[in-house]
Amino acid sequence: MPTDFDTSLPSIRQVQNLIKNTTHVDLKLMTGDLLTGRIIWQDPNCVCILDEHSEQTTIWKHAIAYIKPKN
Amino acid sequence: MPTDFDTSLPSIRQVQNLIKNTTHVDLKLMTGDLLTGRIIWQDPNCVCILDEHSEQTTIWKHAIAYIKPKN
Amino acid sequence: MPTDFDTSLPSIRQVQNLIKNTTHVDLKLMTGDLLTGRIIWQDPNCVCILDEHSEQTTIWKHAIAYIKPKN
Amino acid sequence: MPTDFDTSLPSIRQVQNLIKNTTHVDLKLMTGDLLTGRIIWQDPNCVCILDEHSEQTTIWKHAIAYIKPKN
Amino acid sequence: MPTDFDTSLPSIRQVQNLIKNTTHVDLKLMTGDLLTGRIIWQDPNCVCILDEHSEQTTIWKHAIAYIKPKN
Amino acid sequence: MPTDFDTSLPSIRQVQNLIKNTTHVDLKLMTGDLLTGRIIWQDPNCVCILDEHSEQTTIWKHAIAYIKPKN
Repeated sequence: MPTDFDTSLPSIRQVQNLIKNTTHVDLKLMTGDLLTGRIIWQDPNCVCILDEHSEQTTIWKHAIAYIKPKN
Repeated sequence: MPTDFDTSLPSIRQVQNLIKNTTHVDLKLMTGDLLTGRIIWQDPNCVCILDEHSEQTTIWKHAIAYIKPKN
Repeated sequence: MPTDFDTSLPSIRQVQNLIKNTTHVDLKLMTGDLLTGRIIWQDPNCVCILDEHSEQTTIWKHAIAYIKPKN
Repeated sequence: MPTDFDTSLPSIRQVQNLIKNTTHVDLKLMTGDLLTGRIIWQDPNCVCILDEHSEQTTIWKHAIAYIKPKN
Repeated sequence: MPTDFDTSLPSIRQVQNLIKNTTHVDLKLMTGDLLTGRIIWQDPNCVCILDEHSEQTTIWKHAIAYIKPKN
Repeated sequence: MPTDFDTSLPSIRQVQNLIKNTTHVDLKLMTGDLLTGRIIWQDPNCVCILDEHSEQTTIWKHAIAYIKPKN
């Protein structure tokens, strides 16, 4: 495991919590796209989100600008 | 093999499954381009897609924003 | 810890000070977005900001262009 | 040699074949530019293309979105 | 220290000289922004500039396109 | 020295030749900017060009899309 996927890191644990709590998130990409859904898994390369149409999108971490949990 | 091409990772296995199942995918690039086709191979640097005109395009992974399987 | 998260580095210490002093910052992203708030944590991958609506946004460091403390 | 320039990788071998076969390619860059020509060499950092005016352009691999052989 | 922050490298030494000589610089970012000021410190991750309003901006090196000393 | 600055690599040697021969080049950046001049030094992080006004610009390699020698 590369050190940047150390599961004790706040950024990795936060995503794990978003998965566990099925929190809806806004995910802004480096392309400017804004994707919405809940994260269903992450690994060192990607996060996968499930949207309101039950469609999955696998997003490369290098393409993520930010993740914002929805209230 | 670099650890980020570990074939036990969900992101690597998902692409292997898309190849095996000849699933059609939308592939959004960091340039904003959207490519459509089925993935025919991946390696640590690239994925290669075959489009409806039987033309191949080799895409660098650093250029991928997301992959979305088509239903 | 990767060497670029060495807490003796000025860039890492500056963010630690911004957290400790609850300084408001402008955070310009590679997407052109400008986010405003105060940083509440950093790790080697991300910084998390809290905005005026008490909403958290987790920003990947690769997506940060600059941080400018507000006067 | 870094592992991502392992000449047994499909992506590296494909470019080697494009060079050997003097195949004309479209090369899309992260800037949105589309360059056309045939690849005359590659190394771990760059590929070099020769265009129809016999002019060479050395392209950094981090700037490549995709390579598409022309039919 | 990562090898790319080796202080014997011309690029690192040049920035050190710009700091020592309080040279005014134009700093073009990958976002297209142009920042102007003098560099007050660098580390492996960032450079910090001080502008004409005595405001500091900490810029991530991955976001820098070029630095041009002003005459 | 990182392996990607191995001076036996074609991409590194080509830039060394452009320096030695004081060849004028077009340098396209990831920002879309096109800079013109001759390269006066390179190191693992940057190339420095001298333009027609005898002004120097230090360009980060991650910001380079391509270099094209002028005929």
